[in-house]
Amino acid sequence: MFAKEEYLMRLNKTKQKMMEHGIEVLLIANPSNMYYLTGYNAWSFYVYQMLIVIIDEDQPLWIGREMDAPSAVATTWLDEHHIIPYPDEFVQSTIKHPMDFVANILSEIGQGNRKIGLEMDSFYFTAMSYERIIQGLPYAEFKNLSTLVNWVRLIKSEKEIQCMKKAAKILENAMNAAYHSVDIGVRENDVVAAINQAQISGTMDYGGDYTSIVPMIPTNENTASPHLTWTDRRYRYGDFMTIEIAGCYRRYHTPMARTMAIGKAPKKVTDLAKVVIEGIETTLEAIKPGMTAEEVENIWAKTIAKHGYYKDSRLGYSIGLSYPPDWGEHTVSFRKGDRTILQPNMTFHLMPGIWMDDYGVEITESIRVTEKGCEVFANVPRDVFIKKPSNISTMTLQNEDQVGS
Amino acid sequence: MFAKEEYLMRLNKTKQKMMEHGIEVLLIANPSNMYYLTGYNAWSFYVYQMLIVIIDEDQPLWIGREMDAPSAVATTWLDEHHIIPYPDEFVQSTIKHPMDFVANILSEIGQGNRKIGLEMDSFYFTAMSYERIIQGLPYAEFKNLSTLVNWVRLIKSEKEIQCMKKAAKILENAMNAAYHSVDIGVRENDVVAAINQAQISGTMDYGGDYTSIVPMIPTNENTASPHLTWTDRRYRYGDFMTIEIAGCYRRYHTPMARTMAIGKAPKKVTDLAKVVIEGIETTLEAIKPGMTAEEVENIWAKTIAKHGYYKDSRLGYSIGLSYPPDWGEHTVSFRKGDRTILQPNMTFHLMPGIWMDDYGVEITESIRVTEKGCEVFANVPRDVFIKKPSNISTMTLQNEDQVGS
Repeated sequence: MFAKEEYLMRLNKTKQKMMEHGIEVLLIANPSNMYYLTGYNAWSFYVYQMLIVIIDEDQPLWIGREMDAPSAVATTWLDEHHIIPYPDEFVQSTIKHPMDFVANILSEIGQGNRKIGLEMDSFYFTAMSYERIIQGLPYAEFKNLSTLVNWVRLIKSEKEIQCMKKAAKILENAMNAAYHSVDIGVRENDVVAAINQAQISGTMDYGGDYTSIVPMIPTNENTASPHLTWTDRRYRYGDFMTIEIAGCYRRYHTPMARTMAIGKAPKKVTDLAKVVIEGIETTLEAIKPGMTAEEVENIWAKTIAKHGYYKDSRLGYSIGLSYPPDWGEHTVSFRKGDRTILQPNMTFHLMPGIWMDDYGVEITESIRVTEKGCEVFANVPRDVFIKKPSNISTMTLQNEDQVGS
Repeated sequence: MFAKEEYLMRLNKTKQKMMEHGIEVLLIANPSNMYYLTGYNAWSFYVYQMLIVIIDEDQPLWIGREMDAPSAVATTWLDEHHIIPYPDEFVQSTIKHPMDFVANILSEIGQGNRKIGLEMDSFYFTAMSYERIIQGLPYAEFKNLSTLVNWVRLIKSEKEIQCMKKAAKILENAMNAAYHSVDIGVRENDVVAAINQAQISGTMDYGGDYTSIVPMIPTNENTASPHLTWTDRRYRYGDFMTIEIAGCYRRYHTPMARTMAIGKAPKKVTDLAKVVIEGIETTLEAIKPGMTAEEVENIWAKTIAKHGYYKDSRLGYSIGLSYPPDWGEHTVSFRKGDRTILQPNMTFHLMPGIWMDDYGVEITESIRVTEKGCEVFANVPRDVFIKKPSNISTMTLQNEDQVGS
């Protein structure tokens, strides 16, 4: 996927950070970090697997299920001596745990008494994994370094930016598919099917990858609940909805949300959208290298405060490569207290949304910090999209009861 | 989604198991278990959330992100007093952790000194969550009960079986979409796009839900690596592939794998397929209530052993409702040592596959144990599908170099 030199550079940066934190061995459970350092790419993170970076070894060790070792051979730059399979009897067993196997390997290769970093807050490093590792390595010293590699990922290489630009083209197609498929009498799930089709078909030149979050398309009062997925309810005249989706190219994501309506949008929605749009556009103009993350949030907060609004949740977060269940990088957030200094080629989902009790508006952008400011990845108008219903029986349908299950 | 009576029955069964294990409070991080007991359904499990069952309380407590509390109101049977939001400053912070909030709530409501069960091996209960809970509740006594609710889920209600039958119809459509879209010159991702479209469109009568695992469609030598997803390589004459997908209706899954080929399949593949088909059909005929899980595996093992094959990995696992990253229920496995006794309305993915060094064959079924035997959910022929190429320039294309990126 990337040149070996790029992987080695990433590995060196990781080791440098390990030194800064005084650790000699880093256990990596986060599939995004695993992919970043080795290229490992398979839907196998539902069983335990571990990448082990040892400070004085040239290659990391991949330990995973026997059935997945061929995927490691196929997708990583590691040689076969650094790919260690565990037998299937360790899979979802109440007796044997894959982390017993990992601990044994570490002891066998003389790493059992070292200073070991753990990704304590990674989705796939469970409480039980932790307990087994601790028990299995009684002479080791442990330190929590949950997001060490995540922070190495923060500034993107040119090759990574190219991946995100490709993802953004896919996103444009997917948002277009959403707009064109939304209609009176169409079911929510059929709109998602059209979005998915566009996300995975990609473009004529390259295919799309699965996104780490599925489309979230709440309608009407449910726009107040941004993480609802979909139902098979049929749309009606006057419905409004949030569409939050991403394009994904080889695990690199560019997310975006837009607010749409069929026929017409309620005035409360278009009014709120004006505030959100003014907020995001003011913020986009202001972002430049050298600012802190909290300063970005502050510009937005001041802009919407002029209109009497206050938003409690963060304004955005770092993005790049990722695996389900999240496309956020879990490092920088645009919010009070985050004093990370922006630098060129940091990439973010700038995520202004305002949610009231029974409606909400989201109009968001994936952005890259440039040498002098910032640029958006995808070219999609920032407005409430009003879809003209194609169905001639509009007036009939809007008076009918809900169709479908 | 289900009648309140069904949720209360599930809750009572959970409490009975809690009593058997001597615990008074159960902390549930697994989104599948949360959905099972309350109906909670949103893509919000990438931030911490917790369902708390207290043995002497009528309703569980849902604790989650402020932004997601409206989803809990919208999708669960809980009243608003049992839905407790935490502020956004707890989200992906290096300082505040949502489990501090959970521990505080438990202390405040007088549960801080009780016997508490934890899902130690659940994907979304991280090592850090565990540490914070332990620190925050110094007077509590803890016990690992990772799969307590998973085991309650084992025997499905009639309503659940109906959901799985609906999922199976979607699966049939999706497998059909795979078969019809695979062709010379078509890209792997375009086949996935067609599968996804079918999965989410569902049927005329109901829509489909997202599956907990994305389509896995390795080709040729990569069929030895069952969990590879896809690329944008174009198919060529003589390619063979595994297609492992599911149908999903309201989080209920029926998975299936088939082996396909374009134009012709290599003899080694059709030969191996004969063994796999004889194995699965012999096993399907034998399965009945009263058998143990390991006996099921033994029938398969004996059948393929006659042909000189030995399969190291488990032959299948319990299925039902699930959230990413896995559609397995993490309870029963068809393998040596699993002495679970089969009962009617247990449901499984019977997953015979044989993987050699450079190819593999999978022909699998989702099944339900009935009163007298078992039945398959989906009606899809068990064979290696040979797709006749539609492209007239077949002979040209097969001699060309690979097209596309």
